[in-house]
Amino acid sequence: MKIIVVGAEGDIGKAVCEELGARHDIVTAGRSSGEVRVDMADRTSVEAMYARTGQVDAVVSTAGNVHFGPLADYTQDTFMLGLENKVMGQVNLVLAGLGTVTEGGSFTLTSGVLDRDPIRMGTGAATANGALGGFVVGAAIEMPRGLRVNVVSPGLLDVSVPRYGAWFPGHEPVSSGKVGRAYAKSVEGAITGQVIIVE
Amino acid sequence: MKIIVVGAEGDIGKAVCEELGARHDIVTAGRSSGEVRVDMADRTSVEAMYARTGQVDAVVSTAGNVHFGPLADYTQDTFMLGLENKVMGQVNLVLAGLGTVTEGGSFTLTSGVLDRDPIRMGTGAATANGALGGFVVGAAIEMPRGLRVNVVSPGLLDVSVPRYGAWFPGHEPVSSGKVGRAYAKSVEGAITGQVIIVE
Ligand SMILES: NC(=O)c1ccc[n+]([C@@H]2O[C@H](COP(=O)([O-])OP(=O)(O)OC[C@H]3O[C@@H](n4cnc5c(N)ncnc54)[C@H](OP(=O)(O)O)[C@@H]3O)[C@@H](O)[C@H]2O)c1
Ligand SMILES: NC(=O)c1ccc[n+]([C@@H]2O[C@H](COP(=O)([O-])OP(=O)(O)OC[C@H]3O[C@@H](n4cnc5c(N)ncnc54)[C@H](OP(=O)(O)O)[C@@H]3O)[C@@H](O)[C@H]2O)c1
Repeated sequence: MKIIVVGAEGDIGKAVCEELGARHDIVTAGRSSGEVRVDMADRTSVEAMYARTGQVDAVVSTAGNVHFGPLADYTQDTFMLGLENKVMGQVNLVLAGLGTVTEGGSFTLTSGVLDRDPIRMGTGAATANGALGGFVVGAAIEMPRGLRVNVVSPGLLDVSVPRYGAWFPGHEPVSSGKVGRAYAKSVEGAITGQVIIVE
Repeated sequence: MKIIVVGAEGDIGKAVCEELGARHDIVTAGRSSGEVRVDMADRTSVEAMYARTGQVDAVVSTAGNVHFGPLADYTQDTFMLGLENKVMGQVNLVLAGLGTVTEGGSFTLTSGVLDRDPIRMGTGAATANGALGGFVVGAAIEMPRGLRVNVVSPGLLDVSVPRYGAWFPGHEPVSSGKVGRAYAKSVEGAITGQVIIVE
């Protein structure tokens, strides 16, 4: 398969490329990294990416920014970041890619643990994660040509503990290998409309 | 209790006022209806509303617009409507109201069935509903002074069948009385961080 991975240089993106790169052709993408440059929060930029890659068999997103901060300190703008970037960005990859992915192919997005196991300062992420769970349920029943859409919801990755561990007291880190395999379940399997929990 | 109901003139709003109005003082609010005029999608407008009402014991929102349409027809703008109005609007009521609701008081928001029981043309709503479910989980653990936050997720209301029934094949309508009581569970009860399903 030919697979676009948006956010390929990130912690999760690397785990996905490690797993899927062994068996498939990966096209890496990101705003400031990767073979193709794209800002997924901008639909026009996403359309330009697909025009460049041409037909693919799967699209994986491991990208998405949210603002972390105390509940009482969120402004409308800081709260909207997660909705505009992590949610709308990944939704743009699906909406703009419906004509580019081959029959039976898949979109696999990324949410995270915080809408089921919350932490302080994580409300923006919890909201974005919940939104993506709702999106795949809603979108799966309207996908054309047998296309599929799932979202992987991992716990804190082992490799991300040095960066974020202090914010996640008591959270059990998940191995990057296990996280990578969850994406294979969506890309190489047949499921659709699922939130794939990795804990 | 003194309770603000944003969206009080809508189908769900009327059911809430019927249930809670018997025992409490209701302040009705809406963009073009109600005693207080507010556009919850605009944080400044929400702040002005709270300045006018002063301290309250509970805030209920039964408001929130989303765009309904075929998956393939969503633009970035039509998709964002649900995130900006239904999600950010209701989140604004919480963020801006943390200092206005009395100790142990509550915020009760409204989502809907479409993120667990999807329909064609409902992806915008499914996404917004999922977001609100994530929001209450994330926000509940950071609420000051014992404040609580829940979201009611009703099925299609009996009174709304004439307007929307054709879009919901096979969905079992729920009675407005039952929907109204679900809000009492949040406002008069002690739960927090819950998605209150009404089916
Ligand atoms: N790491 C974890 O433990 C963990 C666990 C659960 C969930 N998550 C979630 O998974 C996502 C990725 O996490 P991560 O830790 O792997 O992040 P990361 O290491 O910061 O990598 C994110 C990648 O996404 C790209 N990116 C960000 N915004 C983009 C945009 N608008 N368009 C295109 N590319 C974009 C970044 O590249 P550029 O900067 O070049 O654009 C970067 O390569 C986040 O939403 C995070 O909340 C992470
Ligand atoms: N009806 C159902 O069967 C049902 C079932 C499940 C979920 N829901 C959801 O519940 C919510 C309410 O549904 P409904 O059928 O009761 O709607 P509705 O009858 O259209 O009433 C919505 C009310 O909200 C107000 N409103 C809308 N946007 C607002 C804003 N930005 N700021 C302040 N007020 C605003 C409207 O007043 P103005 O126009 O004056 O602003 C109106 O009074 C929607 O999000 C809907 O998706 C509905």
